[in-house]
Amino acid sequence: MVPRSLALATDLYELTMAAAYFASRVTATASFELCMRTLPQRRNYLVVAGLDQALAYLESLRFTEEDIAYLRSLPAFGGIPETFFAYLRDFKFTGEVWAIPEGTPAFQNEPLLRVTAPVIEAQLVETFLLTTINFQTMIASKAARVVGAAGGRDIVEFGSRRAHGTEAGLYAARAAYIAGCAGTSNVEAGLRFGIPVYGTVAHSFVMAFDDEVTAFRRYMETFPHNATLLIDTYDTIAAAQKIVAAGLRPQAVRLDSGELDQLSGAVRKILDEGGLQETRIIASGDLDESRIAALLAARAPVDAFGVGTRLATSYDEPALGGVYKLVELEVDYVVRGTMKTSPAKMTPPGRKQVWRRCAPNREYAGDVLALANEPAPPDAVPPAAEPLLVCVLRNGQRVGRAPALNEVRDSCRAALGRLPARLKSLEPAAAYPVEISPRLAAEQQKLIGVRRCSSS
Amino acid sequence: MVPRSLALATDLYELTMAAAYFASRVTATASFELCMRTLPQRRNYLVVAGLDQALAYLESLRFTEEDIAYLRSLPAFGGIPETFFAYLRDFKFTGEVWAIPEGTPAFQNEPLLRVTAPVIEAQLVETFLLTTINFQTMIASKAARVVGAAGGRDIVEFGSRRAHGTEAGLYAARAAYIAGCAGTSNVEAGLRFGIPVYGTVAHSFVMAFDDEVTAFRRYMETFPHNATLLIDTYDTIAAAQKIVAAGLRPQAVRLDSGELDQLSGAVRKILDEGGLQETRIIASGDLDESRIAALLAARAPVDAFGVGTRLATSYDEPALGGVYKLVELEVDYVVRGTMKTSPAKMTPPGRKQVWRRCAPNREYAGDVLALANEPAPPDAVPPAAEPLLVCVLRNGQRVGRAPALNEVRDSCRAALGRLPARLKSLEPAAAYPVEISPRLAAEQQKLIGVRRCSSS
Repeated sequence: MVPRSLALATDLYELTMAAAYFASRVTATASFELCMRTLPQRRNYLVVAGLDQALAYLESLRFTEEDIAYLRSLPAFGGIPETFFAYLRDFKFTGEVWAIPEGTPAFQNEPLLRVTAPVIEAQLVETFLLTTINFQTMIASKAARVVGAAGGRDIVEFGSRRAHGTEAGLYAARAAYIAGCAGTSNVEAGLRFGIPVYGTVAHSFVMAFDDEVTAFRRYMETFPHNATLLIDTYDTIAAAQKIVAAGLRPQAVRLDSGELDQLSGAVRKILDEGGLQETRIIASGDLDESRIAALLAARAPVDAFGVGTRLATSYDEPALGGVYKLVELEVDYVVRGTMKTSPAKMTPPGRKQVWRRCAPNREYAGDVLALANEPAPPDAVPPAAEPLLVCVLRNGQRVGRAPALNEVRDSCRAALGRLPARLKSLEPAAAYPVEISPRLAAEQQKLIGVRRCSSS
Repeated sequence: MVPRSLALATDLYELTMAAAYFASRVTATASFELCMRTLPQRRNYLVVAGLDQALAYLESLRFTEEDIAYLRSLPAFGGIPETFFAYLRDFKFTGEVWAIPEGTPAFQNEPLLRVTAPVIEAQLVETFLLTTINFQTMIASKAARVVGAAGGRDIVEFGSRRAHGTEAGLYAARAAYIAGCAGTSNVEAGLRFGIPVYGTVAHSFVMAFDDEVTAFRRYMETFPHNATLLIDTYDTIAAAQKIVAAGLRPQAVRLDSGELDQLSGAVRKILDEGGLQETRIIASGDLDESRIAALLAARAPVDAFGVGTRLATSYDEPALGGVYKLVELEVDYVVRGTMKTSPAKMTPPGRKQVWRRCAPNREYAGDVLALANEPAPPDAVPPAAEPLLVCVLRNGQRVGRAPALNEVRDSCRAALGRLPARLKSLEPAAAYPVEISPRLAAEQQKLIGVRRCSSS
């Protein structure tokens, strides 16, 4: 495979705007914030993910000669002066990024990320940042629901074959792990991120031998201590009986089809009566949080779940509508907040901080969206509230070390434990409160006023 | 970014099965077929895509030393003999692939791809093939609906920022182009695949200048001949009036929010009365095939559509359930068909061909699923029927040259023109007929019988 040129993994308009800014000598410092205006209908909270890949991109973003030659070949760029291409050749991202750390729950209108840089730089990185944060946050948010529904039983992410390409499978595994999955079937995710990898067998393996028991035996000879045998290729109950009769002692059996609640109960009974109390039952096959909850409500004796398609595609909410909005411009040391006023797309102006209130029992009690440079709102000062955005990149370089993925996963688990219980329902719940500070509200009103005057 | 190790872009079970086959000295030649057991509820046909990437993978698949060291480090592989890792070190895919060409409409139970190779090889490539064909076929199938709804108006794929990662954005652009989109905003797709790229401006660009007209002027100075101005940042109607009053002559204006039918009509009137009859109107903003159909039914004067999220994620059907099933094993020159018999997951055995019947007016009249080695079914001989699967890879190397993407797109357009009209409705239609040849049906019955005997 050709190594990818990530500088061009972007929408063309980022580059046409860059050319126009460059030609117009617009050198203002711009601040953009990445946020979701609303949560998806079936999500009561988001779990932030993807920041590590976003920062790696910002640190390493360069245009290759091939990239530049391609841009130069486009008819749209026919009249663009050579100085612009020279600018791209030397391009580095030199800005600053504040962000909510990965694994943190987040809500509507909260900036997950804020970029401050010369406007061309801050604009150019929009598409990559949106794609990366939208996708991983979407998967982590879905995975948190699935993990929650399993009540402490392991969830293994199995979705690579239905993910939107192999890279999506890789990062879905990462995001799912952050949100509490025990591991993944994706081997590359194991290599790249140290995520525990799990594998069983496919129906084809069972079918490749003359009979089912021979297939089971051969597999167990190779993996005597950690074999999971797939038992639904022909007849699930009969397969469980054959395992007992053959004296096999697999670590686990997997059920991938049929009425999982009844089958798991019947299989558990066969295994227990055959002295295989230690053999675990793993269920898979079009599972999601609702089906897992239903299985557990029916007391299905399932020890772990493999969740594929519906997790790795966030099937019920397959897109997050993250936007990247210009919130502030600094021209010759004069700062002004900026805001779209088109109906239903208004975003509060100015660089912002999010303060998260904590109840005495440490439960999260509501967030305040404030200007970044105002002090903590009087009723939300630490330790009664915590600021969520931290500086993660300055002068184009990361600040401090990136947390290890297991640390992110641990802090995610701790944070999810502090969410109000209603948000963890699988059903839509009353929204978590996100207030706007009085100063931010005043800024917003001021800009609506300005706009109304200037357009009248 | 670290270059990716695609040999590990797979589910772990492909590798555990490989180890078990290797240890058991199973060297049978296996045939696997990739098919969809059913079409998604909201799709009347699929458009095959992703084959070129699948074949590139098969031709180049190798395990690096890093890959092997990682596998060796896994506890599950602790007892695996060194000979297996040596096998992986020398691994090449040596098999044969038959496939339905990209851009072809396809239906339930039809093999989009058939792999015949030593069983370890044929099994190892499962995950990558599924991921790649599932994803691109899903997007091409969605794009065909969107393009169809636009009645000849251009559709530009705008979805990179909501795609499931940057690679998903790249291949979504490719699949959408195959199915008839005019181009994409994704610049990497332009560089890699020669797809026409389109770009306009973002709201942030308009906001970065003191007033809207200055932003428009600056942009048009840089792109005098092909500027698309975004006019909904503050007030769409006022912006159109300002363009006329300022004497600007943009190639197009883009509306990205609001009631697009009313706004496009009002904007068209302003432009026409201002002498800008040549300026096109482009609409975008959460569009899909239904909304486009509704806009055109309301006679909205929109010349082209930018379609993002709902296209690049196949929002209403965000996963294709492709499966990769063992259909035949050849051991010591004895061939046997194989078939799962678990309820609702039965797949016909044996290597298959698909014969597509053509009515005298060249319309597709129904498909016949037959054994690959039977002659064309008597009522489906050429030219009254065409075989769909062709040999595309032999001894691990491609057969013939890969068709250029524009050829694929052209043949897709021609093939879509031959689909029965009912299938092109946006509503679910009576299924396209896919019969099973008498010989294939007999094989299937035979195996069900065998299974019933052996499990009783």
